[in-house]
Amino acid sequence: MRVFVYIAYKGTNFHGWQIQENAISVQQVITDSLHVLLKNENVAIVGSGRTDTGVHAKEQVFHVDIPDETKLDKLKYQLNGILPETIVVNKITEVISEAHARFDAVSRSYEYHLLTQKSPFGREENYYCPILLDFAVMNKAAAFLLGTHDFQSFSKVKTEVNNFVCTVTRAEWNITANKAVFHITANRFLRGMVRAIVGTLLMVGEGKIAPEEVKKILDKKNRGEAGRAVPPQGLYLCKVEYPEKIIKPHE
Amino acid sequence: MRVFVYIAYKGTNFHGWQIQENAISVQQVITDSLHVLLKNENVAIVGSGRTDTGVHAKEQVFHVDIPDETKLDKLKYQLNGILPETIVVNKITEVISEAHARFDAVSRSYEYHLLTQKSPFGREENYYCPILLDFAVMNKAAAFLLGTHDFQSFSKVKTEVNNFVCTVTRAEWNITANKAVFHITANRFLRGMVRAIVGTLLMVGEGKIAPEEVKKILDKKNRGEAGRAVPPQGLYLCKVEYPEKIIKPHE
Repeated sequence: MRVFVYIAYKGTNFHGWQIQENAISVQQVITDSLHVLLKNENVAIVGSGRTDTGVHAKEQVFHVDIPDETKLDKLKYQLNGILPETIVVNKITEVISEAHARFDAVSRSYEYHLLTQKSPFGREENYYCPILLDFAVMNKAAAFLLGTHDFQSFSKVKTEVNNFVCTVTRAEWNITANKAVFHITANRFLRGMVRAIVGTLLMVGEGKIAPEEVKKILDKKNRGEAGRAVPPQGLYLCKVEYPEKIIKPHE
Repeated sequence: MRVFVYIAYKGTNFHGWQIQENAISVQQVITDSLHVLLKNENVAIVGSGRTDTGVHAKEQVFHVDIPDETKLDKLKYQLNGILPETIVVNKITEVISEAHARFDAVSRSYEYHLLTQKSPFGREENYYCPILLDFAVMNKAAAFLLGTHDFQSFSKVKTEVNNFVCTVTRAEWNITANKAVFHITANRFLRGMVRAIVGTLLMVGEGKIAPEEVKKILDKKNRGEAGRAVPPQGLYLCKVEYPEKIIKPHE
């Protein structure tokens, strides 16, 4: 049977999601664990998308085919027993056999966590910005991202895609006492897109560019126009949504 | 002039507060930094109390004598510039010349942070307890700690003190979605006291002992009666209070 596995991970000590030579990735560690538990050397897991080195996931989803007789609760328990404490399995659900964690995802949500006050805590799980920011104008700028646009200005130049069009349905900063969190949801994301967007919004918040500049940057379709990418430790993949019809109801 | 310096630190990579041979302590790192900034090889700092290896501080206070002409804002800025990101100076205030960070403290507050849901995040800054706990009975048990008691049952056996009497003015658990925080305030604490108390309250929460047992454990004045010490990564020194009269008003 095919299952969707919902996991969370702290990305600090992984070279991102994607399996690669000579580096420890989240996909590698999980594949190795499933290999042991399922006694299958050819187990292949397919994630909803990649995350870069140091980027975290509150919710990442992958699909994998496992023997029909597998008890899902037991597999979850066993996986959590052998995975490092920086990877946690939250849910395993049966899906239809053609379900695909990447191609069937209809939306993805990210958060970017900013410490606005110097603190010794959470430094691997947030980015500390020592500059005073105006979040009201940053939210004004973020509103220009809503809707369907060509986001080439916010994509890494080295990329395999030709289509840069994304539909953003949420883009806003929420502020608490000593923290600010940027929430962004879209049907798809380009490589480095959230970190380039946040870097650009920081330029707005510092007063270096006007909020309306974000619209002009989009129009130019040139990565050089946007701000620098912010560091990975503040970024979280938070939710991946799928159509209900691919999830099998529990008996 | 004598100043009180209010700092926060993440204890994970320090062998506690206290200077010692062959190990990095918070006191050592701060002393070295002040030595550089004040160009004084004999700078001596006195903390409000020790914290053990791996224990954090949201607020620790130490006193130190610095040249009268020192600009306090500048010293704070310089200290934060050279200290590692796991130690942060929040405030430097002038005090009367006899003020003592340890002897003048009238109360200290600690928190113990417990993750009640498995998570890959914050594992160096919380203790994850995989067992389901009944916080209502734990709060019932905690109430027996309030007031003035002999806490020898909750003190490490190796200790330099003879007086085990402490007055506890707050002892309660606050619960949020996936976290529980124990708050305890007392005029003084014994070595290992908070971690032994929390370990005992966990036994209550697991149903191993009744809440009233806490009273009996106090009466026995024997460390063997209390629960095992919980790990250091959940413990925070949070507040140290002083009489107003020792703080010099700002001109």
